[in-house]
Amino acid sequence: MISKRKVGIGIVGLGYWGPNLIRNFSEVENCIVVMACDLDEDKLRPITRKYPSIQVTSRYDDLINAPNVDAIAIATPVFTHYELVRKALERKKHVLVEKPMCATVKEAQSLINIARKNNKLLMVDHTFLYTSSVRKIKELVSNGELGDLYYFDSVRINLGLFQPDVNVVWDLAPHDFSIANYIIGEEPVSLSVLGKNVNDNKVACMAYITIKFRSGIIAHIHVSWLSPVKVRRIIVGGSKKMIIYDDVEPTEKIRVYDTSIQFDYTKENPLQPTYRLGDIHIPRLEQKEALWVEASHFVDCILKSKKPLTDAEAGLAVVKMLEASDTSLREGGREVKL
Amino acid sequence: MISKRKVGIGIVGLGYWGPNLIRNFSEVENCIVVMACDLDEDKLRPITRKYPSIQVTSRYDDLINAPNVDAIAIATPVFTHYELVRKALERKKHVLVEKPMCATVKEAQSLINIARKNNKLLMVDHTFLYTSSVRKIKELVSNGELGDLYYFDSVRINLGLFQPDVNVVWDLAPHDFSIANYIIGEEPVSLSVLGKNVNDNKVACMAYITIKFRSGIIAHIHVSWLSPVKVRRIIVGGSKKMIIYDDVEPTEKIRVYDTSIQFDYTKENPLQPTYRLGDIHIPRLEQKEALWVEASHFVDCILKSKKPLTDAEAGLAVVKMLEASDTSLREGGREVKL
Amino acid sequence: MISKRKVGIGIVGLGYWGPNLIRNFSEVENCIVVMACDLDEDKLRPITRKYPSIQVTSRYDDLINAPNVDAIAIATPVFTHYELVRKALERKKHVLVEKPMCATVKEAQSLINIARKNNKLLMVDHTFLYTSSVRKIKELVSNGELGDLYYFDSVRINLGLFQPDVNVVWDLAPHDFSIANYIIGEEPVSLSVLGKNVNDNKVACMAYITIKFRSGIIAHIHVSWLSPVKVRRIIVGGSKKMIIYDDVEPTEKIRVYDTSIQFDYTKENPLQPTYRLGDIHIPRLEQKEALWVEASHFVDCILKSKKPLTDAEAGLAVVKMLEASDTSLREGGREVKL
Amino acid sequence: MISKRKVGIGIVGLGYWGPNLIRNFSEVENCIVVMACDLDEDKLRPITRKYPSIQVTSRYDDLINAPNVDAIAIATPVFTHYELVRKALERKKHVLVEKPMCATVKEAQSLINIARKNNKLLMVDHTFLYTSSVRKIKELVSNGELGDLYYFDSVRINLGLFQPDVNVVWDLAPHDFSIANYIIGEEPVSLSVLGKNVNDNKVACMAYITIKFRSGIIAHIHVSWLSPVKVRRIIVGGSKKMIIYDDVEPTEKIRVYDTSIQFDYTKENPLQPTYRLGDIHIPRLEQKEALWVEASHFVDCILKSKKPLTDAEAGLAVVKMLEASDTSLREGGREVKL
Repeated sequence: MISKRKVGIGIVGLGYWGPNLIRNFSEVENCIVVMACDLDEDKLRPITRKYPSIQVTSRYDDLINAPNVDAIAIATPVFTHYELVRKALERKKHVLVEKPMCATVKEAQSLINIARKNNKLLMVDHTFLYTSSVRKIKELVSNGELGDLYYFDSVRINLGLFQPDVNVVWDLAPHDFSIANYIIGEEPVSLSVLGKNVNDNKVACMAYITIKFRSGIIAHIHVSWLSPVKVRRIIVGGSKKMIIYDDVEPTEKIRVYDTSIQFDYTKENPLQPTYRLGDIHIPRLEQKEALWVEASHFVDCILKSKKPLTDAEAGLAVVKMLEASDTSLREGGREVKL
Repeated sequence: MISKRKVGIGIVGLGYWGPNLIRNFSEVENCIVVMACDLDEDKLRPITRKYPSIQVTSRYDDLINAPNVDAIAIATPVFTHYELVRKALERKKHVLVEKPMCATVKEAQSLINIARKNNKLLMVDHTFLYTSSVRKIKELVSNGELGDLYYFDSVRINLGLFQPDVNVVWDLAPHDFSIANYIIGEEPVSLSVLGKNVNDNKVACMAYITIKFRSGIIAHIHVSWLSPVKVRRIIVGGSKKMIIYDDVEPTEKIRVYDTSIQFDYTKENPLQPTYRLGDIHIPRLEQKEALWVEASHFVDCILKSKKPLTDAEAGLAVVKMLEASDTSLREGGREVKL
Repeated sequence: MISKRKVGIGIVGLGYWGPNLIRNFSEVENCIVVMACDLDEDKLRPITRKYPSIQVTSRYDDLINAPNVDAIAIATPVFTHYELVRKALERKKHVLVEKPMCATVKEAQSLINIARKNNKLLMVDHTFLYTSSVRKIKELVSNGELGDLYYFDSVRINLGLFQPDVNVVWDLAPHDFSIANYIIGEEPVSLSVLGKNVNDNKVACMAYITIKFRSGIIAHIHVSWLSPVKVRRIIVGGSKKMIIYDDVEPTEKIRVYDTSIQFDYTKENPLQPTYRLGDIHIPRLEQKEALWVEASHFVDCILKSKKPLTDAEAGLAVVKMLEASDTSLREGGREVKL
Repeated sequence: MISKRKVGIGIVGLGYWGPNLIRNFSEVENCIVVMACDLDEDKLRPITRKYPSIQVTSRYDDLINAPNVDAIAIATPVFTHYELVRKALERKKHVLVEKPMCATVKEAQSLINIARKNNKLLMVDHTFLYTSSVRKIKELVSNGELGDLYYFDSVRINLGLFQPDVNVVWDLAPHDFSIANYIIGEEPVSLSVLGKNVNDNKVACMAYITIKFRSGIIAHIHVSWLSPVKVRRIIVGGSKKMIIYDDVEPTEKIRVYDTSIQFDYTKENPLQPTYRLGDIHIPRLEQKEALWVEASHFVDCILKSKKPLTDAEAGLAVVKMLEASDTSLREGGREVKL
């Protein structure tokens, strides 16, 4: 039982993301990073030097058997997620796992069951949902400022970085899938993906994804490793206002356009709308690091037995969309039901 | 036979575009605008005032029967094109017709035959192909600077203007279809379109179009009347260089990125490319008005019996794509062969 | 006497600006353009063609003697202003004169006296004060939103256009002088100008102007014909908010930053301020043409005997600054009292 | 004597800049960071943790007496520079001192003498001269691509950070003074500064600086802690080409405009130039950190007894300009000879 003491955190996977997890959990209240693990012993040494109080190990079993570890944050390659999460849950540890949650829908469903059976928290690291940008958009959508949502349009392109094992959809689209599902607040019903390979590379390095949601809202996502410029731009169009979220901007990330088209059904030709072009508002956003917000939320959910924002169901939804994307890609862009 | 004298031009349709045709043809050598026609007599008066030497009429028959009219430029609504073009060709006039050439593939094929039978020129007003921007891109592609083409990506979005009779694909995509076909220089083999209507409007007001070309190049076109901002941006990606064409920029429309990914097949893992990020070049473009270039080309093709850049076959190709787009839209985004 | 009938307007000077005056006065209520004048008869013909109801003449005397001309708008070179304005006022015509009002302070003072003696309106065409951008800034300053003003900083640079007879200060700075005086609402007390000539050209083609105002507010103006890019940007800094006015932006010309530095005199070190970085607001501006607003204002002031916003005193203030600028330029940037 | 072994580096001052010095010298060949010093013992601990091999001390004497320290890098407040540099030179250490070199011209001249007498290197940390951006500009100027230089225009403004002890000129303008002197390659002959204080703060928080160079080239520098936006932009105008260096841009920092005005003395009016607007070129710049380049240069100059790019004379020139700026500021913007 967790009480009187801080949540003990163990981290596995010390590549690019793991050290960020350690740094952020180290700054969260009510928790303590007690152990870090990587198969590669060379990755343990810098941790010891920087955080002398953190134990290190190259054996995952040490981590899941440590009595002072209450929760494990996993930042290893996707294909390892299922086994690592399963073992941790079965050893009664709460889990925060890097996105995507795992490699198949079947795995995801199995992990949801295991978490339930062991009564442990399983949260997925969809970091963008903890940015002040995405939270601001969600707030504006939720309080009705945008009116009815029409569409969600994301462009996430850059030159590289080609991944050795996954295609561009698995690499970049989980961000957009999780953001779109969260902002729209509905189940997607189908998607289709047109991809492009180059140079005998079997793996798609650019893709156009169209998604239909239950109520008719559409999402479109353009991901690419083949663009000469970096673009990270999401447009959310509503019947009353529209938002542009430009993540490349250092500070002015969110622009709210008080702009809409208005259909007047008392007119002779109601389908010729009038255009309302109003003010633009650029809200000042909090400067907190998203991963710190997320780590705090994870600890808070453990301590208060709350359902996390990015729970395993949210993780499953994204894995479903990835699996469907692969099917659609293989079949030349056919629409696949979800 | 045209010789010794200037090509006599007649203009029909004096709405938004017709006066531009008059103004530009008036500044082209070797031609003379002799007559202008519109059903609405109110539209004739300003022409008379501004160009006292141009005859005006509200009857199309006057235009096609005038012996000093050698060629007719048509700027009327799409659904009228077929009849107007047919009559003009049958009265032995050369024709320049506003895009899209006509409303159906069947009409387009018929017009091609009529033009051939009457031995007259039929040219389509795909104006963008006469801009210095598109000609610069074509030049760079043709002389091999871009290497192999990978993709063509166009975003053409704004708030409005909703059209009363056609959907957003018919309104905006003819530009991109003609540019893509010209730049890529291949036949498209299939396309699929996902659209979105709002407010019981039966007509799609935003659409995502994906096109496959014979050699595997893909094109993607995003057209919308529902965007809070105006974007007119085309990216052309090649194996050696990439181009961004931003038509909203007043002068720096074309940026050539000496940027590429390089696959080295002598490496252990050839699919992990290296990234070459080189200089960016912004060529100074000629400031000539595209429509003047086009009008000059039309007159030149008449006088020298040359095949125009945007001939009836090019017009047919675009109409085919529009017809296929409607099919795909109706069927929820199904891929339609061309 | 003006009553029951419209104000009769005469225009003199049909170069670049005169036709704009005709076009705009033609669209203003309660006035009628009755006559246009230019020494060059070739400039009269296009006016006759476009506005058959407007009389034309190459003799200024015809204009000032015409009984149906109540007011004259002058758009001729600066060195001619004094004589043209004087004659018009003495013939009992109201006058709108292109900026700057005239070539010397002495002339300006004389014209003010002549206008007073003849009881006629003398208004100066400081067009920028009628733009929705400048009016919006003035509104925000006047209602206290910016707090105390700290500074006014303007950059107005481009490549060319070199003027044959005046230096860059006379060409471009009248805009900034009139805007600064209007926004700040105080008398300037001194200015200094550092200029730069090139290629044996005796005339400064770039200049940096610093102006001190009575209360300590400073203005700085950078004007240049020697810049590779066009910049038209004014920053107005206040103790509560700051504004950036970017006139090159097609629609988003005004950005209001809810940003300030705050000095807390209860702190140990009150001179180490805190920084408040708040929202940014981009107000939608009216799309009316500034010259139309100004022409309407001129007619309205005549009909209602009101004092115009840009009256002869405002014109004199600008001429004083220009004269002082020339002195400072000649003396290598010495500060000159106003 | 330095031979066979690496240059031993000692660092004093572990505030903001000192740790950057340690990090960069640690990655330079042929040198070794042997000791770090700060009066505040709390600042020593993180160094020990991160670099266990570096000795730490709170006594400067330890540093200058250490036999394995050949050179000392000083990153302490300006008012301490003179004493620290003097002692180090007298103990036969080479010195790299943070900009500005010291607080007065007299101090600077004294240090130059002390360095000469002790035959030691004295280099000033004008970091910007080691950026790939400034080196690229210098290269283009040196090889004649820009033609004759006309002007150097710098805007370096932001909100804050107010400094407790120095005005905005001392805080920000040393960058521009050193860059301008380097690019122009001439002695400045005079400068004048208009500044602005706010809220009883005795210290100028914005300033406009105009500088005249021997051959007539002018430089203008706008520095401010009172701007709502961050601007870091230098324009260098030449008779053949012009450069814009925008340091806020993440990668496209340098734009070379093949743009000029051309005076044709065979024409009737040679002072009416023609405008040549050509291509724009954005060269890819090396991504090396400037401080690493500088640290390498310092070590290289020590080992090879070379004169550094930013030697004590360059440091003196900047201190002269700062001292003159204070005089001009006090006297309301009077031009001060250098």
